[in-house]
Amino acid sequence: MTSLDNGRNPIDDFVAVVPAGGVGSRLWPLSQPHRPKFLIDLLGTGRTLIQETVARLAPLTESTLVVTGVRHADAVAQQVPSLPASALLTEPSPRDSMAAIALAAAVIEQRHGERIMGSFAADHVIPDGEEFRTTVRTAVEAARTGKVVTLGIAPTGPSSAFGYIKAGQALADAPGAFAVEAFTEKPDEATAARMLTAGGYTWNAGMFVVSTSVLLGHLARLQPTLEAGVREIAAAWDSADRDTVVERVWPTLTKIAIDHAIAEPVAAAGGVATVPGSFAWHDVGDFDSLAQLLTADASGTITMGRDAAVDAVAADGAVVIGGTKPVAVVGIDDAVVVETEEAILVTTRAQAQKVKDVSL
Amino acid sequence: MTSLDNGRNPIDDFVAVVPAGGVGSRLWPLSQPHRPKFLIDLLGTGRTLIQETVARLAPLTESTLVVTGVRHADAVAQQVPSLPASALLTEPSPRDSMAAIALAAAVIEQRHGERIMGSFAADHVIPDGEEFRTTVRTAVEAARTGKVVTLGIAPTGPSSAFGYIKAGQALADAPGAFAVEAFTEKPDEATAARMLTAGGYTWNAGMFVVSTSVLLGHLARLQPTLEAGVREIAAAWDSADRDTVVERVWPTLTKIAIDHAIAEPVAAAGGVATVPGSFAWHDVGDFDSLAQLLTADASGTITMGRDAAVDAVAADGAVVIGGTKPVAVVGIDDAVVVETEEAILVTTRAQAQKVKDVSL
Repeated sequence: MTSLDNGRNPIDDFVAVVPAGGVGSRLWPLSQPHRPKFLIDLLGTGRTLIQETVARLAPLTESTLVVTGVRHADAVAQQVPSLPASALLTEPSPRDSMAAIALAAAVIEQRHGERIMGSFAADHVIPDGEEFRTTVRTAVEAARTGKVVTLGIAPTGPSSAFGYIKAGQALADAPGAFAVEAFTEKPDEATAARMLTAGGYTWNAGMFVVSTSVLLGHLARLQPTLEAGVREIAAAWDSADRDTVVERVWPTLTKIAIDHAIAEPVAAAGGVATVPGSFAWHDVGDFDSLAQLLTADASGTITMGRDAAVDAVAADGAVVIGGTKPVAVVGIDDAVVVETEEAILVTTRAQAQKVKDVSL
Repeated sequence: MTSLDNGRNPIDDFVAVVPAGGVGSRLWPLSQPHRPKFLIDLLGTGRTLIQETVARLAPLTESTLVVTGVRHADAVAQQVPSLPASALLTEPSPRDSMAAIALAAAVIEQRHGERIMGSFAADHVIPDGEEFRTTVRTAVEAARTGKVVTLGIAPTGPSSAFGYIKAGQALADAPGAFAVEAFTEKPDEATAARMLTAGGYTWNAGMFVVSTSVLLGHLARLQPTLEAGVREIAAAWDSADRDTVVERVWPTLTKIAIDHAIAEPVAAAGGVATVPGSFAWHDVGDFDSLAQLLTADASGTITMGRDAAVDAVAADGAVVIGGTKPVAVVGIDDAVVVETEEAILVTTRAQAQKVKDVSL
């Protein structure tokens, strides 16, 4: 071990990378293209999801990079004032997750040489930071053995919303880590139920820990032009040439998800490990899943981010979010009413998935 | 006939009385105690219901009185600037319909001597004013025979929301008028259906035409203290003593509906006639009945009183009223969304009756 790990101190050679992308279109009008999910205080805690994410990682490292789109760079800088300007990697245009993460890895190597990096989305909800960090520390040690290490989330049910990780043998040289036999695309619910019965499956939350040189090594082999491109950009990143090089090279990078570029082929070759975590984890995708994380008042109504009164008449389990006006819900069970400065949404918890189809 | 009735000229000795009361609590938050139904532009025509009512009566008479509560007198005067101050009879407190109408009758007699008066609520919707006025003209002539004449509304279905008028023999001396055999309280739907099958029944919309002396004569016999009270108030109405007398006498007036005070007992004695009208008539009580009067756009959505966009996703027949923000309705058929400056209502057309139970 290169870090003095008493479970409290930062890990010297560990860099956290926070990809901050994705609108959260089923959470409209709370989230919108100009105000994506990671920039909002989704749970009414007083902190936005990216603020929570950066704070959750802070005890692990003194070095966190955020990778985000040019449109949101200012908002991220404003919301996370602790972030040095150099720690904000701005993508001029979206080129999928592999380019974003590879750029971070290449910039880290360019600046510091090899490091262990961990990638954690900016918009996930993880209530127990301590348990999360314990899992990451285990994953960092496993990554030192040369593996790509994914965090496995303990399933709370046969969800069809996530991909699954199939764990195999425990790894002798990495306590708490297991070989990954395969990644599974989002299954239907029946298949998911069979997987949970069979055992050994965890949810794939897209969180992984890996040495920068291991990651870039896999990339050089599997997506060589992409690897060459991010290396070229990284070499110019902290120089006066950055804009010129980015402008020339970035648009040429292969658009591919890291799952397809690295995780799946490397797993097939035995190069991926998983560390199962026992921390609660929520990818709050719509108002139904959001409501599950909020507490109802004595009348059974859930409110969040608002002070004005709610009256529910013959309407059980109403969810009323945001806004400044009194709201009455009459005769619709599990209604969801969301008011922002820009718009009003009316739906039900059961129909909340369809909010992504709103075009206003 | 004392009037030269070519169907166009005002009727010389006819005075229209417009009782303007009732909140319309199932139309919250459009209607509220401080902004009752008759003061709102319910159909988005650009005119409020009381403005429509006064305009509808104008071709019949040069003399219209509005009876309203003290709280709404200023708003009525503002909305109906053609109304002279003397034509606005202000009730200091609500004492039911008999006191309001008897006061109007007594003030008319005090000012002008006997007149034919017609009473028409301020918050009904009657799209065809011409047909309505033709019916009123017929009723005025019938009232000259000494009858209390009610207008009968042609039923459009077996509604349980209205009382019914049972017509008997045609009156020989009053063309187009029929004796009233009885008034029926709101029936259940099955009873209403039997009544429509039997024939001879019309809806009682509370619109009636009667000579002031006939009305006050019935009142003197049936409710003598009430008659004496309104006579005393009327004698002082256009004098410096009005406030003193009103303050002393008004609170003592019997609280009773005109149906029970006059219509029912006089009908039992053969003194009531009815003139069936063929004009469309709507007592728009809730957002379901309001929606029936509005026109859907090409997508099936009904909007009123708003410019901002509406998007209905998997939501047929959405009704969106008022407000300035874009509204999305997702997955709720026949949803009703109403936004005012003060509040937001979310319900469905089928549940719209329960809006009266909102307490915000």
